[in-house]
Amino acid sequence: MSIKKNFRIIYPASRKVHVPGKIHDIEVSMREVALTDTVLLQNNEKETIRNSPVTLYDTSGPYSDPRVDIDITRGLPRLREPWIENRKDTVRLQDFSSRYSNERQQRADTDSIRFPVKHLPRRAQPGHVVTQRYYASRGMITPEMEYVAIRENTRNEDMGIRSDITPEMVRQEIASGHAIIPANINHPEAEPMIIGSRFLVKINTNIGNSALSSGIDEEVEKAIWSCKWGGDTLMDLSTGNNIHETREWIIRNTPVPVGTVPLYQALEKVNGKIEDLSWDIYRDTLIEQCEQGVDYFTIHAGLLKQSLPLVKKRLTGIVSRGGSIIANWMTIHGEENFFYTHFEEICEILSAYDTGISLGDGLRPGCIHDANDAAQFAELSVLGSLTTTAWAHHVQVLIEGPGHVPMHKIKKNVDEQVRLCHGAPFYTLGPLTTDIAPGYDHITSAIGAAQIAKEGTAMICYVTPKEHLGLPNKEDVRAGVVAYKIAAHAADLAKEHPGAFIRDNALSKARFDFRWKDQFNLSLDPEKALEYYKESHLDSNSDHCTMCGPHFCAMKLTKNMQSCANLQENEK
Amino acid sequence: MSIKKNFRIIYPASRKVHVPGKIHDIEVSMREVALTDTVLLQNNEKETIRNSPVTLYDTSGPYSDPRVDIDITRGLPRLREPWIENRKDTVRLQDFSSRYSNERQQRADTDSIRFPVKHLPRRAQPGHVVTQRYYASRGMITPEMEYVAIRENTRNEDMGIRSDITPEMVRQEIASGHAIIPANINHPEAEPMIIGSRFLVKINTNIGNSALSSGIDEEVEKAIWSCKWGGDTLMDLSTGNNIHETREWIIRNTPVPVGTVPLYQALEKVNGKIEDLSWDIYRDTLIEQCEQGVDYFTIHAGLLKQSLPLVKKRLTGIVSRGGSIIANWMTIHGEENFFYTHFEEICEILSAYDTGISLGDGLRPGCIHDANDAAQFAELSVLGSLTTTAWAHHVQVLIEGPGHVPMHKIKKNVDEQVRLCHGAPFYTLGPLTTDIAPGYDHITSAIGAAQIAKEGTAMICYVTPKEHLGLPNKEDVRAGVVAYKIAAHAADLAKEHPGAFIRDNALSKARFDFRWKDQFNLSLDPEKALEYYKESHLDSNSDHCTMCGPHFCAMKLTKNMQSCANLQENEK
Repeated sequence: MSIKKNFRIIYPASRKVHVPGKIHDIEVSMREVALTDTVLLQNNEKETIRNSPVTLYDTSGPYSDPRVDIDITRGLPRLREPWIENRKDTVRLQDFSSRYSNERQQRADTDSIRFPVKHLPRRAQPGHVVTQRYYASRGMITPEMEYVAIRENTRNEDMGIRSDITPEMVRQEIASGHAIIPANINHPEAEPMIIGSRFLVKINTNIGNSALSSGIDEEVEKAIWSCKWGGDTLMDLSTGNNIHETREWIIRNTPVPVGTVPLYQALEKVNGKIEDLSWDIYRDTLIEQCEQGVDYFTIHAGLLKQSLPLVKKRLTGIVSRGGSIIANWMTIHGEENFFYTHFEEICEILSAYDTGISLGDGLRPGCIHDANDAAQFAELSVLGSLTTTAWAHHVQVLIEGPGHVPMHKIKKNVDEQVRLCHGAPFYTLGPLTTDIAPGYDHITSAIGAAQIAKEGTAMICYVTPKEHLGLPNKEDVRAGVVAYKIAAHAADLAKEHPGAFIRDNALSKARFDFRWKDQFNLSLDPEKALEYYKESHLDSNSDHCTMCGPHFCAMKLTKNMQSCANLQENEK
Repeated sequence: MSIKKNFRIIYPASRKVHVPGKIHDIEVSMREVALTDTVLLQNNEKETIRNSPVTLYDTSGPYSDPRVDIDITRGLPRLREPWIENRKDTVRLQDFSSRYSNERQQRADTDSIRFPVKHLPRRAQPGHVVTQRYYASRGMITPEMEYVAIRENTRNEDMGIRSDITPEMVRQEIASGHAIIPANINHPEAEPMIIGSRFLVKINTNIGNSALSSGIDEEVEKAIWSCKWGGDTLMDLSTGNNIHETREWIIRNTPVPVGTVPLYQALEKVNGKIEDLSWDIYRDTLIEQCEQGVDYFTIHAGLLKQSLPLVKKRLTGIVSRGGSIIANWMTIHGEENFFYTHFEEICEILSAYDTGISLGDGLRPGCIHDANDAAQFAELSVLGSLTTTAWAHHVQVLIEGPGHVPMHKIKKNVDEQVRLCHGAPFYTLGPLTTDIAPGYDHITSAIGAAQIAKEGTAMICYVTPKEHLGLPNKEDVRAGVVAYKIAAHAADLAKEHPGAFIRDNALSKARFDFRWKDQFNLSLDPEKALEYYKESHLDSNSDHCTMCGPHFCAMKLTKNMQSCANLQENEK
């Protein structure tokens, strides 16, 4: 690991603020952007008007907090550890419960890449369930629930904005299954966040190495990078070497929930031979990852044997990696999907750690032609019944969705998901709204993601410009995250989420005032905005830009007109 | 002018095809992409299946036609000249009708930048009207109408796809005003194209210098560049020096319709002093530009004195350059908008050249806060009555729209536009769906543009990544055009435009077959796709990519599964 790098995140004109809880002894981190004054010239007199700072939802965690020393070889502060301990329903184990975890601890050849600090895992005491859903259903408002209620409001009440998001409302949404707080008890470094249609739309970013590229240091850097630009959760989709160690480094250093597809690692354990996959290996992988702190698992339990013939009618077959693996396993063995046949046991394991289930859409359409087809909806219907089973075990559930869908077929996806899956939060990959733009699929899919989020999808999984072409690098991650922050925020505005417009209005006012730096500082990517601006401007105090030149600036002309009109009024 | 550059446009694996007319002696140019064969391994036997070539709508004109010698100092072939002559309703003038044009011809100091070939202008014979709308209302199917009918169908009938787009249907749409063919008789170089909600969604690109940057050669290069990537029309929004000569170079070398905002040049003629603007100067500018061949003018005739007080409630005032200029003029002089008071005279001038009117939305919202406000809809209502007036003069009309609109307010824009403007085609700038992403406004607006086009907007005006920050360079133009081609095509799919899916399906099939080169060749930007692919691949015959590596390729696994299932079936 190249640990010399400075992982500190600095946003311009910003400071970290901490909002205290009222129920629990907690502090919720946010980002406050300071603005400069508006200067007006009124009848040749200079008038100065103060602009209030703007508080933003902040996914960068301790990396932007000057109070915290960042050392990625030690990991982030374990924020939630005291909360978990206070509940007195968990035990710290003396060893790992997974064979594989213990093996990896013993091996000398992984010494150099092993995360330096060993945290023994925690699990529920026998007979206990430790999920946020369980607590909510028992009427408890946990620190996690209060945390997300405060976090979602980003101090809007200071701006006089009313919000229906309260700790009690959060509890109700969790209890009903309409929202989840992914919060594995073994990932206490993560700051609580909530995923549900009544909350801010969230975005997930995928990172992870493949057999052909990328090392641990690169993946940790991408994880922090994703948090910098606004990623709300992170999926580690590694399929290459040293998956176990890579994941440990990522989890210990990531302030947002981390998801995985455990099947990928299970397949690596049998050297990529699908026929050798078994429930036993998969089960051990689940326990291994639960004890590392994975906050949610994608599990393709809804892809049944009976649906496979429906795939033949497709143009691009199965495009979900997990889906295609389990479909092959079923075809080879002539047996039913073992995620499905062992689903209750999976739920029992997960409920002891509060790892959520993201029910995978192994049959999501992989092209416009296959959208909304019989295979896709057959699987969705199975996901609905699995949701009920998981909820009975107090496991928190997400439902994954497509994929590739033309715009006129997007709404049906949400309608059917809500109907079949009892209001569990929907989590979609895009969807891409056309197939003809490889190299630009962050855009083809941001168009679809904004719309599906407007219809009620709670979290959208980003797509980078490299989708369909190669593994994304850091700049691709940035492009994907920003495109998806745009889609999510556009949906928040369209859903009239309380206070969503504050940032837009503040930025627009800065634009109208020619407060260029404020405009950049309030934007999703201040560095890019400044870079583009500098390409064509000599100074940043200009009252016009190169787009229009001095004579043709509409905003300047509006001001002139208003001054002129005011003057005329005053003269009367 | 640096005329040594090679302006030839070459698309990979593509050839120019020419589809003959049935009514008129015309040839419609299209692009045909050749595909490689699909190779199947069935029971160890290799089977080869031919893939039909795909025909694409082509905006690149003669630049991609090997039959044509390109010489930008001579201009493009004058395709429509014989069609116009055959109608015998125009005269070739012996001189320019505009004072300013004649002055510019005399000046020695512009010799070096003047376009080398002088084309004397053509106008309607006295008492004649020469607009496509006029011909359509008289029951004539012009060569232009047949051309666009063939062009829109891109040989879909060869694929067995039925389309309701026929020359007679085009005539009806033009006669009703629901579509327009911008086709100034002095721009015979342009290939006819149609803008209307029943046709393929079109995109406009803006180029043009400002007082602070960009020369003639750069603008001509941007114009051709825009056509290469798929721009359907081009607006020259120059506001700097030598606007007259720059425009001449652009029009003579552009195979798509060219639009302008004549007010910009009129303001330059009075050295940027708004108070000195007059109807007389503006009128001469209209004639100057009609005789150069501008195909449509943006005219902000709907912004009336009575609407100005409504602007005070806004966060960002007036953001239309033309709107803010005329609003200032009205405020200074205390008079009504002269575009409005002289509107009938404007229509008379334009009908003699078939220059269309794009009724400008001077009061379009410039931020999320101001969307769908009283000022905006007050102006739209005036545009509706002006549409009726223009139609009475047989002038073809577009209606311009916003701007900045959150997603939940987009549909109302189209509904009101259709209601108030009698079904005249809508032409919107984006809209941007959030204000918080300067540097990425091609994305914030592609999200809105795709939706508004799905609702019936006929043409969307591109936005580049530099919007709000500076004048776009060539790469920004490319990024903007491709983002808007995506939005337009996504809308075509959502509207179930006949045959729109052919390209998606062909590309998806290539993807499933690992025919990488076919995938790239069919994409909107083959160069970018190939560049991204090459970043992480050693060869292009791989049956997997770096995203998933060899074990995790879903498409490969689907094929394995299907082979396995077929084998099992055969064994039974």
